[in-house]
Amino acid sequence: MQQITMTPIGIIHSPYKQVKDMPIQGTFKPQVSAHIELKDEYAPGLRSLEGFSHAVILYYFHKSKKQELLGRPFLEDKSNGIFAIRSPHRPNHIGLSVVKIERIEKNTLHFTEVDVLDKTPVLDIKPYVTYFDMRENVICGWVDKHFKNGKIPTRTILKKTKK
Amino acid sequence: MQQITMTPIGIIHSPYKQVKDMPIQGTFKPQVSAHIELKDEYAPGLRSLEGFSHAVILYYFHKSKKQELLGRPFLEDKSNGIFAIRSPHRPNHIGLSVVKIERIEKNTLHFTEVDVLDKTPVLDIKPYVTYFDMRENVICGWVDKHFKNGKIPTRTILKKTKK
Repeated sequence: MQQITMTPIGIIHSPYKQVKDMPIQGTFKPQVSAHIELKDEYAPGLRSLEGFSHAVILYYFHKSKKQELLGRPFLEDKSNGIFAIRSPHRPNHIGLSVVKIERIEKNTLHFTEVDVLDKTPVLDIKPYVTYFDMRENVICGWVDKHFKNGKIPTRTILKKTKK
Repeated sequence: MQQITMTPIGIIHSPYKQVKDMPIQGTFKPQVSAHIELKDEYAPGLRSLEGFSHAVILYYFHKSKKQELLGRPFLEDKSNGIFAIRSPHRPNHIGLSVVKIERIEKNTLHFTEVDVLDKTPVLDIKPYVTYFDMRENVICGWVDKHFKNGKIPTRTILKKTKK
């Protein structure tokens, strides 16, 4: 399997300049907004996306300079495999977020539910489709215990503890 | 924004050898199974993933040799922007599927809900997390009308029509 070369299609402009400012997921600070500025030549690719409420954005974790196979998620003290967590320090450094589409203007996609750093390069945008992307009876391993009773965890990336 | 180089972490072994054999989404043929064979060195990255019912897999659409900005989805006669459809002929050719984890053995992830071709290179695996990846009140643009009343569309990729 050979190497694959990708070219960013645009860039994210976000109020989050540093990791420590961000919520662990964008839905936890729904009032924050950001936008993707696509390179002009990709603007036609946004046609019809305004009919969707949400999009999946794929991007490059440009601030991560390392690759780990085990990592400790923000909510945990013990480490898990990199493919069981959402850490940026993963092979290929691809990030994925579901965002809420607010409006589209020419080459710009305005969105809320932001959990991405400013200046993040964008690799792809896909429509979020209920019938493809949602599942029933989902079990979330080590994550579930942190969200019991529908609560948002009080322990965020700002409150790291070490053991 | 400069180019980014990625290295596949493994390969998908799937019963689907050709596009025409595949359902439009894996949930529509839930009995079919496939597996991801990771390169040995990435096996530790799977630790704890067995606690999750579903994973998001990101892969490279290796059979697509072209890039389009507009495309006609399988269910439609009119074209939409590439970022409003899930076509493989997209910039950077990244595919995304939510799959059901069946079991994990060393470097192998067995899954069902398959909609990926045999020999597809894998770029990343992420745990599917309700609190991050599911949304309420989702509106799906041109897609919704094809799934009215909870029905699976009878028109699949095997039944292309041209106008």
